[in-house]
Amino acid sequence: MGDELEARIAERALAYVVDPPRGDDPVIELASPAELRKVFDASVPLEFDSVATAHHDDAIVEAVDSVIRYSVHTSHPRFVNQNFAGPDPVSVAGDFLGAALNTTGATFEAAPVFTLMESAVLAKLGRIAGYVAADSDPLPTVPPGLFCPGGSTATLYALQLARQRLRPDVNTTGATGEKLTVFVSDSGHYAASKSAALLGLGTDAVIKVESDDAGAMIPDALGDALTASKAAGQVPLAIIATSGTTVTSAFDDLHALADHAEAHGVWLHVDGCYGGSALFSPTERHRLDGVERSDSFVWNLHKMMGMTQQCTALLVKEPSRLAECFALRADYLFQPDKLHAEYDSGDRTFQCARRVDVLKLWLAWKHHGDTGFAARIDHAVAMAQRGAARVASSDGEFAHVTGTFTNVVFGWIPPELRPTNLTPLSIPTLSAETHATLHAIPPRIKRRMQQEGSAMMGFQPIAGLNTFRLLVMSPTVGPDDIDSLFDQISEYGMSISAITS
Amino acid sequence: MGDELEARIAERALAYVVDPPRGDDPVIELASPAELRKVFDASVPLEFDSVATAHHDDAIVEAVDSVIRYSVHTSHPRFVNQNFAGPDPVSVAGDFLGAALNTTGATFEAAPVFTLMESAVLAKLGRIAGYVAADSDPLPTVPPGLFCPGGSTATLYALQLARQRLRPDVNTTGATGEKLTVFVSDSGHYAASKSAALLGLGTDAVIKVESDDAGAMIPDALGDALTASKAAGQVPLAIIATSGTTVTSAFDDLHALADHAEAHGVWLHVDGCYGGSALFSPTERHRLDGVERSDSFVWNLHKMMGMTQQCTALLVKEPSRLAECFALRADYLFQPDKLHAEYDSGDRTFQCARRVDVLKLWLAWKHHGDTGFAARIDHAVAMAQRGAARVASSDGEFAHVTGTFTNVVFGWIPPELRPTNLTPLSIPTLSAETHATLHAIPPRIKRRMQQEGSAMMGFQPIAGLNTFRLLVMSPTVGPDDIDSLFDQISEYGMSISAITS
Repeated sequence: MGDELEARIAERALAYVVDPPRGDDPVIELASPAELRKVFDASVPLEFDSVATAHHDDAIVEAVDSVIRYSVHTSHPRFVNQNFAGPDPVSVAGDFLGAALNTTGATFEAAPVFTLMESAVLAKLGRIAGYVAADSDPLPTVPPGLFCPGGSTATLYALQLARQRLRPDVNTTGATGEKLTVFVSDSGHYAASKSAALLGLGTDAVIKVESDDAGAMIPDALGDALTASKAAGQVPLAIIATSGTTVTSAFDDLHALADHAEAHGVWLHVDGCYGGSALFSPTERHRLDGVERSDSFVWNLHKMMGMTQQCTALLVKEPSRLAECFALRADYLFQPDKLHAEYDSGDRTFQCARRVDVLKLWLAWKHHGDTGFAARIDHAVAMAQRGAARVASSDGEFAHVTGTFTNVVFGWIPPELRPTNLTPLSIPTLSAETHATLHAIPPRIKRRMQQEGSAMMGFQPIAGLNTFRLLVMSPTVGPDDIDSLFDQISEYGMSISAITS
Repeated sequence: MGDELEARIAERALAYVVDPPRGDDPVIELASPAELRKVFDASVPLEFDSVATAHHDDAIVEAVDSVIRYSVHTSHPRFVNQNFAGPDPVSVAGDFLGAALNTTGATFEAAPVFTLMESAVLAKLGRIAGYVAADSDPLPTVPPGLFCPGGSTATLYALQLARQRLRPDVNTTGATGEKLTVFVSDSGHYAASKSAALLGLGTDAVIKVESDDAGAMIPDALGDALTASKAAGQVPLAIIATSGTTVTSAFDDLHALADHAEAHGVWLHVDGCYGGSALFSPTERHRLDGVERSDSFVWNLHKMMGMTQQCTALLVKEPSRLAECFALRADYLFQPDKLHAEYDSGDRTFQCARRVDVLKLWLAWKHHGDTGFAARIDHAVAMAQRGAARVASSDGEFAHVTGTFTNVVFGWIPPELRPTNLTPLSIPTLSAETHATLHAIPPRIKRRMQQEGSAMMGFQPIAGLNTFRLLVMSPTVGPDDIDSLFDQISEYGMSISAITS
């Protein structure tokens, strides 16, 4: 491909994409910061001297090999650590093409093809979510949403849109001290609180509504919370429904929440960052029934769909609100006397320059089609079900905690403690000794996984007790990988128990 | 490289990076939305049907060729349209490698190498800006800043940090209605107003301080504005200094502004999105003298330095403020019982998942060294000076308006109106007829450039009159390209004048 450094780097990246780590390849080669420093000292040191010299191409290529070797292999079938995994190869290549053409999505002038691709993709997503009619323009001048750098940012924008609708003057005159409140389940994402802090609502304005054992908001509790907030002299601003919570992948009942939103005249934002992609599957899309009644909906295609970081669509029911809320009409950029300026998206969002995240999604979707996208979802659910079945049939070795859709939350129980019930309601009834024993297990097993490089699986406290979370989204995860994950936990668990007892 | 679709796409991207459009190649092949739709209909339609089918690889590759052909060639030496251009090839390849390894920068666990690279790069940037001592740790556990998705976002974060310092309770209890004010020059970026709207300060809270003819803030005017704001019962929150304004690349006098900031106890944020990179050049870095006295400093490496979209560093003088302001300690992600969790950056920022923008910068910097980075800046300034000299020696054909550093703002004057003085102060004295004639010229010349594909140069109103803006940052721009740009304006201008008169 050429001797240029850029070609040598790209060659290695492409080889990795075409033939990624799998099977017995390590998921990670664990190294401490001190060890990594030593590794890079042998080619190109990680740090910069006070006068940074230019390094030879060969040394940089050697460093690139170290970058690859010591990075986490998120495309490995046994990377089930968090809510992204298994990058789609076409998406990775599309991302590269976008970088090569390096432009900004803010204006048609600078991004003619990508502006139209955004329109096409957002229109299609809008139709899937029921935000626009099935027979609406597939290539509208103003699409029903925008792309933004991540789900937290999208939730920030959504709350700003909500405030703009409720109190149109705040954008110009500032917050008045009036207490505007935001409702989200206690299983919802912390983006609600982070956004409330930034917006000047304050984190106290976020009212965490009780969720059920599965992690879904209890609609009656929302109704009570809305009423109580009003009684306290506050003004309910927005309800954030969660479609696919981070830990258990719970889906709030969107119709029930929409009923409350309509009754109280409150903005309904759906955080479908993770679970929004269920809409691609005819058998799973029922989980988001009612999403068409929401005012805004964020959908991270870089999570379940394997688009590279980042690919976030924020759909907005009334797209004209975007310009009303964000437009500042910078006269050096959004000149009306430019060609096709009516397509410019830059004045409908907060960002100015903006990476063209749409290209990779457009290419992947055109490659896989709706059927391919549905298959990715259905496969993930099937593999998670295999994991859940393993837990259920383990004679008490694994204890089911919670989880649905693609998520299985469970614990590993040492032989002398079997059976132990770990449902969220029973965890508080554990003896202090049992709690301490079980709590210490997941971090130690995970450390072994990392040390062996055999897998990466996340854990988190549920009712104060560390528990594993298996979540699947990559099409490369096969039945053997699921079996292997549980076998490893079993093996490492026994070996840890033997040392401890 | 292989028959897989991803390989075929990547092959085309790499060929483009290694041998980008130049010389007589078009900068753009202009097409309207309707024309683009037709182009893609021949391979893969831009829009999606209600049931989107999977397209054949050959058709997608054909579409990729259309994507490349009809995109703007921002690496072309005659793309001088906006404040990014000339992507660094090593940066593009590094971007690809980051996408291939697709992970998030939020935790050491998921991004061990990239976490340390961020530390190294931020520590180096911090030393260059005088934010940390020259002999400080080149690989600190908590670096003096963070990466974020663009300059507007960085300014948003900076103002939030400022508010957190001044009114620590607002993050939790919300804005009280107290009028906190932000000071920026009337040549500064609209991110100040957009951020103020989001933060609930309101756009009215942004006080636009008068700038001089060159576009730099008048320090005495700032002093007056601060005093007036206090007298009106407001509380000054932050001063945003601009280092490299969008239109004229003016640099505010940072020492003078720091004096005011210190006298009034106000946060000083430096918007060096464009001009911050002058710090790389020993001969140009004086423009930012005093930046070491600021509290925060945003620096877009994706502008002058040619990193791909996006690569934004926000430096913070007191890095501990980041965690104080943004931490929410999500227990499923930032577990203290994980390995090396003290390096986790995710709880020091607003975003959760975050693309690893650092890799491309690390690779490019290790490749070019400090000397190579300095050369990029010095070359850009030299080419801009060539343009300014052409204006000065044109016997009234081109009229100088303003501009410094890499920017030349000028007008083209039809023969019958030569000489016409277009300095900002003289523009308002033009007759209505002359104003109308001159105002119509840049959009028409630009349209010709786009139609011929020969160049792209921006224009914007100065004192209400459309004027050209030449700005140079790409190392591929040679003297002949500068000459060609002026020759084109001359030729197209004459041809337009002939039609009109």
